[in-house]
Amino acid sequence: MKIETLTVIGLGLMGGSVAMAARKRALANRVIGVDRQREALNFSIQTGIIDEGFLEPSEAIEASDLVVVCTPVDQIAADVVTAASLCQPGTLLTDVGSTKLGIIKAVENALPADTLFVGGHPLAGSEKSGATNSRPDLFEGRLVILVSTAKTTSAALDRITEFWVSLGANVEVMEPEAHDRAVAWTSHLPHMVASALSAVLPRGLEAMCATGFRDTTRIASGDPLTWSPILLENRKPILDSLSQLDECLSSIRQALMRADRRSLDALLTQGKEVRDALGD
Amino acid sequence: MKIETLTVIGLGLMGGSVAMAARKRALANRVIGVDRQREALNFSIQTGIIDEGFLEPSEAIEASDLVVVCTPVDQIAADVVTAASLCQPGTLLTDVGSTKLGIIKAVENALPADTLFVGGHPLAGSEKSGATNSRPDLFEGRLVILVSTAKTTSAALDRITEFWVSLGANVEVMEPEAHDRAVAWTSHLPHMVASALSAVLPRGLEAMCATGFRDTTRIASGDPLTWSPILLENRKPILDSLSQLDECLSSIRQALMRADRRSLDALLTQGKEVRDALGD
Repeated sequence: MKIETLTVIGLGLMGGSVAMAARKRALANRVIGVDRQREALNFSIQTGIIDEGFLEPSEAIEASDLVVVCTPVDQIAADVVTAASLCQPGTLLTDVGSTKLGIIKAVENALPADTLFVGGHPLAGSEKSGATNSRPDLFEGRLVILVSTAKTTSAALDRITEFWVSLGANVEVMEPEAHDRAVAWTSHLPHMVASALSAVLPRGLEAMCATGFRDTTRIASGDPLTWSPILLENRKPILDSLSQLDECLSSIRQALMRADRRSLDALLTQGKEVRDALGD
Repeated sequence: MKIETLTVIGLGLMGGSVAMAARKRALANRVIGVDRQREALNFSIQTGIIDEGFLEPSEAIEASDLVVVCTPVDQIAADVVTAASLCQPGTLLTDVGSTKLGIIKAVENALPADTLFVGGHPLAGSEKSGATNSRPDLFEGRLVILVSTAKTTSAALDRITEFWVSLGANVEVMEPEAHDRAVAWTSHLPHMVASALSAVLPRGLEAMCATGFRDTTRIASGDPLTWSPILLENRKPILDSLSQLDECLSSIRQALMRADRRSLDALLTQGKEVRDALGD
C-alpha cells in the first residue's frame, strides 16, 4: 500500500502513533496533522511526526487520500462529517474511536451512502496520553477492529484493512453493537475499576503500593478527557457488565463473611483460569 | 551480616527467592530448605537454590541461625511454633506472611516471651508462583514491613532488619493491625477485584483483551492456595475496603445512568491523581 497524503485529525497518543507508524513504514509520502492545540502541532512538526500541521481541517483535507480521525469519541462523528465535506471524491475516511455504534450511526445519518467511511478501533494504547508519548510500534502485532454495516463497501473495508496491516496490525471485522458490548468487558469495565481502586486508596498508603496495586490500577492514569466520553457513550453495555461484576464481588463478600474457603477457592480458581489463558 | 546456616521453610516463590537472594549476596554459608513437596525440594537442590533439603523441619532446624517461614499464611504460625521448639537458644525466627495480626497473636500465645521471633512481610511478589519462578533480585529496592509488638525485642528487630537490608530491601516497622489494614487496600482488595474481572469475562472475548485488561487482571493468576488463606485471614479489613470500593463504583454507576459528565470527570480525575503520584 502507498498513500500520497495521509491526514491525521487529533494529535494525541493515537494520532501521533498513526503518523509515526505510517512514516516509519514509508506508507505515506506526506503526513498532515490537524489539532486545535498549537502545542501539539508544534511538537509534532518539530519532532518530525508530521510534515505539516493545521489548526483547522479546512486547509488539510483537500489533498488527502486517507483521513484518520483520532479525536475523543464525542467529537469523532462531527470531525468525520466535516472532513467528508472537505475532501475530494474517493478519499477514504476512518477513525480510531473506542466506541463504534454511536459514531457510525451519526456519520451514516449525516452522509450519503457512497461516502468511503469505515469505523475502526485499534486495541492498543497506553495510560500515557498526548503526542509526546506516541510510538511508531504502537500497533505492531495488535488487533484492530473494523466495523461493518449495511452501508460499508467492501472496497473501502479492504483498503482500510490494508492500511492497518501495513502498520503491522491484525484486523478483525465486527458489527458495531458486538464491538461495543465486547469492549465494555475488556476495556471500559477494567478502566472504571482501576479508577475506583485508585480513588478510594486512603492517603498515606502510597509507599505500600507494590507491583500488584500498580499493575491493577495502571490504566487509571488515562486522561479523563479521553475516558469520560468513552464511558458515557457506551454506558448501557458498561452498566450491564458492572452489574455482573457487582454480583461476583458480592459472592466474594459472602464467602469472606461466612469464612467459606471452598467458595473462595472456586472464585479465585475461575479468575486464574481465565487470566492464565490470556498469557503474559 | 553473615549467617552460618539459613533455613527456609516453604520453597515457593518467596522462599525460593529468599534462598537465592541470600546466596547471591553471600549472606549465608549454608542454605537449608524444608518443603512437604519432594518436587520443590528436588528442583531447589538441582538448581542450587538450596544446599540441602528436608521434607520435615525436624532435621533442618537444629543448626540454624535464622529460620524464615515462607508457607501459606494459614500454616505460618504452626510452622513457627514447631521451628521454635526445635531450634537452639538464640536462633532468630521470622516469616514472610501477607497478613500479620493473626500470626503474631498465635505465635506469641504459644511461645515464651523471649523467643526471638519477628513477623515480616516483603511487599514483593509475582502472579507466578512456585520455586521455579524464584528470583534472587525479588527484594531489591522493595519495602519489607516488620511488625513490632510489646513482646518484640529490639535486638531481634535489628537483626531481621539487617537481614532484609542485606538482601537489598528497605525496612519499615509497623504495628500488626496497621499493617493488615494497609495491605487490605494495597494488595488484597486489588487481588479480589482482578479475580472478579477475570472470572466474569464472557467466553469468546479473550482475543480482544489488550494491555489494559491484562495489566488490570495480572494478579488474578496468583495461586488460590496462597490467596484464599490471605483473604480469609484478613477478612475484616478487606470487607471494610470492599464497602468503600462498592460506594465508589456505585457513584460511577449513578454518573453513567444520569449521563453526568462532571461527576464522571471528577471521579476519573481523582483516580488519575492518586495513580499518577505512584509513578510507573
